[in-house]
Amino acid sequence: MRVFIPGVDGYLGWSLALYLAARGHEVAGADAGFRRRWVEEMGSDSATPILPIEERLLVFKETFDGELRFWDGDLCDWDLVEEIFTEFRPEAVVHLGECPSAPYSMIDREHTTFVQRNNVMNTLNIIFAMRDFAPDAQLVKLGTMGEYGTPNIDIPEGFFEVEYRGRKDRLPFPRQAGSWYHWSKVHGSNNIMFACKLYGLRATDVMQGVVFGTRIDEMGDDERLLTRLDFDEAFGTAINRFSCQAVIGDPLTPFGKGHQRRGFLPLRDSMQCLTLAVDNPPEASEYRVFNQFEETYDVTELARKVQKVSGDLGMDVEVINVENPRLELEEHYYTPDHQNLLDLGYQPTHDVEAEMKVMLEDLLRYKDRIEAHKDALLPQMRWDGRHEKVHYLK
Amino acid sequence: MRVFIPGVDGYLGWSLALYLAARGHEVAGADAGFRRRWVEEMGSDSATPILPIEERLLVFKETFDGELRFWDGDLCDWDLVEEIFTEFRPEAVVHLGECPSAPYSMIDREHTTFVQRNNVMNTLNIIFAMRDFAPDAQLVKLGTMGEYGTPNIDIPEGFFEVEYRGRKDRLPFPRQAGSWYHWSKVHGSNNIMFACKLYGLRATDVMQGVVFGTRIDEMGDDERLLTRLDFDEAFGTAINRFSCQAVIGDPLTPFGKGHQRRGFLPLRDSMQCLTLAVDNPPEASEYRVFNQFEETYDVTELARKVQKVSGDLGMDVEVINVENPRLELEEHYYTPDHQNLLDLGYQPTHDVEAEMKVMLEDLLRYKDRIEAHKDALLPQMRWDGRHEKVHYLK
Repeated sequence: MRVFIPGVDGYLGWSLALYLAARGHEVAGADAGFRRRWVEEMGSDSATPILPIEERLLVFKETFDGELRFWDGDLCDWDLVEEIFTEFRPEAVVHLGECPSAPYSMIDREHTTFVQRNNVMNTLNIIFAMRDFAPDAQLVKLGTMGEYGTPNIDIPEGFFEVEYRGRKDRLPFPRQAGSWYHWSKVHGSNNIMFACKLYGLRATDVMQGVVFGTRIDEMGDDERLLTRLDFDEAFGTAINRFSCQAVIGDPLTPFGKGHQRRGFLPLRDSMQCLTLAVDNPPEASEYRVFNQFEETYDVTELARKVQKVSGDLGMDVEVINVENPRLELEEHYYTPDHQNLLDLGYQPTHDVEAEMKVMLEDLLRYKDRIEAHKDALLPQMRWDGRHEKVHYLK
Repeated sequence: MRVFIPGVDGYLGWSLALYLAARGHEVAGADAGFRRRWVEEMGSDSATPILPIEERLLVFKETFDGELRFWDGDLCDWDLVEEIFTEFRPEAVVHLGECPSAPYSMIDREHTTFVQRNNVMNTLNIIFAMRDFAPDAQLVKLGTMGEYGTPNIDIPEGFFEVEYRGRKDRLPFPRQAGSWYHWSKVHGSNNIMFACKLYGLRATDVMQGVVFGTRIDEMGDDERLLTRLDFDEAFGTAINRFSCQAVIGDPLTPFGKGHQRRGFLPLRDSMQCLTLAVDNPPEASEYRVFNQFEETYDVTELARKVQKVSGDLGMDVEVINVENPRLELEEHYYTPDHQNLLDLGYQPTHDVEAEMKVMLEDLLRYKDRIEAHKDALLPQMRWDGRHEKVHYLK
């Protein structure tokens, strides 16, 4: 199948290109290099060494004996989107080309408006390109479990049957996002739901949990195939950041009380799930939602697991909570459904500690790279608008 | 109170400036003249003759013995927004500065992206200006009843208590908008709801029904004070368009089966309600939603009323349904709450036919202006993307 990946130079994008190519799909991608610049702006760098995109493309060709067609540019630029769709004629689009960071969107007005404009506009361009040039293709759109927030009731997959004042309807489940970034994803989900109804497009909206891990099997022993792994406050996520902290001997730092519960999944599970979506497209006009995660975990529970696995590897690290830079519940009900992908055949890895061990061993090789940007680890972007490093709570 | 009105040159904006000034408020406004250009783009013009904004400002000064401070510009321009907020220091902002047209947003990709970008971005600018320069001010934001769509259950005012799998929560009511424009309003509502929680802002989100009518008492006999009245397919709304059709002897044209039910309210009721919101601000951090309409009506029922009142005035007009350019249910359940404004003292006009009579008498004076642009009356922008005049169904 011809699969087009906006954001192919990113954490998930690069991994997915390898994963799909290894399974015989014809992959194309686009990227403006935003992610590299954003992480640099945060004073950080990928823990894993990654090649410039031009060299990545050469290694891809050498590895898979087939080309990864690539467009260097911004999908907010309609002319570029039109060129890609008319030349490549994708049968599936896996849209990983949005700015994925809550803290980045909270820095200041300029960053908020950039993230919302970028994410809403490039998704609209993709919608219109599909309508005009690939009406039978499917869109797999990366959303986030964060769109739902933490309601006090179960979270279904996108829609729920509701009874209200004696009448019933099936309605979109209310979204209560917790950052400007997360709301940009809600705006995108709403636009795509409408596009399916309006233009007969077919879309899978992936409410993904927090991804962790340095690798998938397709990277093998070739360091040049590694994907990026960020640990700065904006682009690093919980387990990845804990692991980088462990490797340099810094305390692992859950936010606030540390009992936020979220869905998590290893990078390899994310690839498996996105590919299941691609391989099992929805019907025309169908808009379906997958809650994509392996299991829910309490953040402190995960920090303890990283601590334990680090200990097994001879590292002695503490867990010390820090002030919470975010505005969020730190103890709450959280019971999201996640049946749709299991029904399609998703086989969860389920061994979080084994996955952590692989990551920690990888990261130990790049300890110096993390040391070099260790200042980026502790957050300073606070949801109330202040820029001030969080303090340890002890 | 110092009230700032983005979109002060528009149908509601100009009326509200007069209404508030007559009640002793200090009014300022901004406008980029977009609405005048959009209507021209649709090949039409206001049925009522309206003065250029510079002359409107002189008449305002002469009438109210006080100045309407005015900024000519686009609120997507942050520097302008910052200048306005620091110089005027508003105590209330009534945001009427968005593109208000569903059909306009459906013309093509360029119009869709323009409407969503314009509406989302200028609202974000206003949010940040309030946070930084007017944190105690209140925002009254014009949304639309169209954000809710037509669910098969009652529509509460913004939030509902829901029981799901044995647990309860109070959640935002799901939105199911029916055009790219309506979704832009949902995006804005979501952003404002979050801003109240995040920055402690206070906001009233007005889910307004369809407004009709040519005047409010404050315009008196001074033609120079009249507000605009559009009848083209994009900026004219149901009763206003039926009335313009009646005046030139054209058939009144409900869409499809014509049993769409919507909330409607006269222009004078809209002014009364917006002013009630301004005069009764919410608490800090409070985000409240008002469903703002007088009563719900079936569209064909309204066409029949316009036909009857036209008959009383000696005009003989038919009602003939046309193809529906939209994708919408033409017969459906529709029971929205509208108690919040009544609780604040809203006294509905309730005499729709009397209001229609006033409007028809006004419009008869401007029959030639409507005749001159009568081609703009029948829609050609279809929700499926085609541009083709709708046909009569008979």
